[in-house]
Amino acid sequence: MTSPIITLLTDFGTADAYAGIMKGVILGICPAARIVDLSHEVPPQDITAGALLLRSAYRYFPQGTIHVAVVDPGVGGARAAVLVRTAAATFIGPDNGLLQPAADEAGIEAVFALTRAEFHLPEVSRTFHGRDLFAPVAAHLAGGTPPDAFGPTLGTLQSLPLAPPRRSPAGCIGEVIHVDRFGNLITNIREEDLAAFPASTLSVSIDGCAPIPIAATYADGEARGLLALIGSWGHLEVAVRDGSAATRLGAAVGAVVDVRSV
Amino acid sequence: MTSPIITLLTDFGTADAYAGIMKGVILGICPAARIVDLSHEVPPQDITAGALLLRSAYRYFPQGTIHVAVVDPGVGGARAAVLVRTAAATFIGPDNGLLQPAADEAGIEAVFALTRAEFHLPEVSRTFHGRDLFAPVAAHLAGGTPPDAFGPTLGTLQSLPLAPPRRSPAGCIGEVIHVDRFGNLITNIREEDLAAFPASTLSVSIDGCAPIPIAATYADGEARGLLALIGSWGHLEVAVRDGSAATRLGAAVGAVVDVRSV
Amino acid sequence: MTSPIITLLTDFGTADAYAGIMKGVILGICPAARIVDLSHEVPPQDITAGALLLRSAYRYFPQGTIHVAVVDPGVGGARAAVLVRTAAATFIGPDNGLLQPAADEAGIEAVFALTRAEFHLPEVSRTFHGRDLFAPVAAHLAGGTPPDAFGPTLGTLQSLPLAPPRRSPAGCIGEVIHVDRFGNLITNIREEDLAAFPASTLSVSIDGCAPIPIAATYADGEARGLLALIGSWGHLEVAVRDGSAATRLGAAVGAVVDVRSV
Repeated sequence: MTSPIITLLTDFGTADAYAGIMKGVILGICPAARIVDLSHEVPPQDITAGALLLRSAYRYFPQGTIHVAVVDPGVGGARAAVLVRTAAATFIGPDNGLLQPAADEAGIEAVFALTRAEFHLPEVSRTFHGRDLFAPVAAHLAGGTPPDAFGPTLGTLQSLPLAPPRRSPAGCIGEVIHVDRFGNLITNIREEDLAAFPASTLSVSIDGCAPIPIAATYADGEARGLLALIGSWGHLEVAVRDGSAATRLGAAVGAVVDVRSV
Repeated sequence: MTSPIITLLTDFGTADAYAGIMKGVILGICPAARIVDLSHEVPPQDITAGALLLRSAYRYFPQGTIHVAVVDPGVGGARAAVLVRTAAATFIGPDNGLLQPAADEAGIEAVFALTRAEFHLPEVSRTFHGRDLFAPVAAHLAGGTPPDAFGPTLGTLQSLPLAPPRRSPAGCIGEVIHVDRFGNLITNIREEDLAAFPASTLSVSIDGCAPIPIAATYADGEARGLLALIGSWGHLEVAVRDGSAATRLGAAVGAVVDVRSV
Repeated sequence: MTSPIITLLTDFGTADAYAGIMKGVILGICPAARIVDLSHEVPPQDITAGALLLRSAYRYFPQGTIHVAVVDPGVGGARAAVLVRTAAATFIGPDNGLLQPAADEAGIEAVFALTRAEFHLPEVSRTFHGRDLFAPVAAHLAGGTPPDAFGPTLGTLQSLPLAPPRRSPAGCIGEVIHVDRFGNLITNIREEDLAAFPASTLSVSIDGCAPIPIAATYADGEARGLLALIGSWGHLEVAVRDGSAATRLGAAVGAVVDVRSV
């Protein structure tokens, strides 16, 4: 048996030891676990950003990987703590929409509420369920405890209110949902939303800027020129070769993305 | 035998490869070691911040974990390099106060000066003992070398000058010792300092601000309202639900914390 | 057999999940791989900074370590993807100068172009070869595939245009090539460039500032005083004890470094 993989996605940052503490808890329960950081720099309490990161990443991990995600402004309150079993992976975290886009794409088989206290730390704080509840459940699962041991099944998983792009007369209209480290503007328009139009006829405008042609690769852009392309998330992105599209266009999350066939 | 765990806590940041280099040195000596980052973002040369992080984290790791901590403004000077054996864990780092709060809480059994050069890299720089001395010692220890092989015992461990909170007529007075990524203000007042007072009667004032009631969980706070609670460190914290208490109150490390029973 | 080590050096940052995704791909192909982050905070698209970090780090890893480096502004364009075999290590990444300083120092034995698609992900994007090409090749190599299986040999490796320091009448003249987290100014002047002069007679000036004496250790400096020393990279550095030399001198990458024997 190979060692089970547990990934961590949080908004804890890396300046504090919160993520390291979760690893200590996991290794104390399941010494064979292999832990991989997806990111700990989700903007604080930004459930949507965390959900999109998780959906972009989970499919590149081996079958059976356990993904623990904690962006949890309601910690200690009424929101449920859940384990979602899918064919591809298991997702563990708060039931606040964070897990839903990835779990839906992976195909939900069952949802369990994490109510059985024998799989939590002996003392569960009201403020840090990543350490006291989600990390130990993930470690017990990695060690062989079956998913249905952690608590009763739940009928539904909380959905994330994500607006899909809308069709327009000449193409479709969406929005910028993420700005990455390079200043690339990642939109909610996916490759399949554009399938009806030949790429060579498409151009993109962000918040009303001059139309930007769609290219096949970053290297196709002129140095410092704007270009649009289907990026590594499978989403339409706007980029500047050797520069930042966010800075160039003064654009941020929420900017309007207008794709037109010309 | 399961693989020994070595944690790393430094002020090296993650932009440079200093932490990665320590891992290379460790794996060259003890290929079975499992390395976990606690944090590499202790504020540069801030021994107190590093010491508090280490104390907050070590107890969540399995028995026998080796914690290497390097916040070391005096590197290459007269300060000793030490290994501290406790019942729960081993601590390795400079003898400048960094290890003391965690080691004292864990119960010091013995302190060794790391003087035996055969357990260091062949060439020890005057600037990077993390790589040349602490990492190799940790790896040799993880590989089975007994603690007393690394050098002679020392009688004492350098103490960190940490002021405890003081009693006041109606409660106690402490200070903010850390601001985390969410803007939560973490104080030097621990749960046991407040045990004499019923929580329902307590309120907190930071630098003279209006009294803030003590709540049981973040979710108990009104949206954007200030609340105080015993946080995941076991310390009194002041937080804003969905916001930053540090920004709201203009407070930073050193701010006066006045807890009163009313 | 011990587990093969794969290091990652990129400019992807850690806010996005790009580095985590590379780890997922690697573990899917070679579950026994041990993955170590060198850094993901190379300044975006700064090939020179990445190349210097890689050269400073690789030698501290065990024989046979596989180093994957991705700083790749030309991704999807004409630049080759390569694997460089040396006696000490294997380097994998784009052929844009990034690998050359480390590979040259380690002693290049062979260079292979990564053209064989059966070792890449089934679908190779034009934007993220770290995930689709470099990570899978590294994992297959770690799993035992021989280097010459990945593609044909190449005659040369792209060189990085790095200016060496020049001799001056009284010493040598170089430049600042890196500013680390502590504000230390790291120069392109290496210990061997100064071997002809006794250290006790040398002083350093940055962009024409008053001469700074060369010290043996950070602890030799007066509190808050400037000092120069051979640092942990084996390069001449200028530092401030308990402070930032970059801030004190207003100096950045490219500043002129004038070393004189007096």
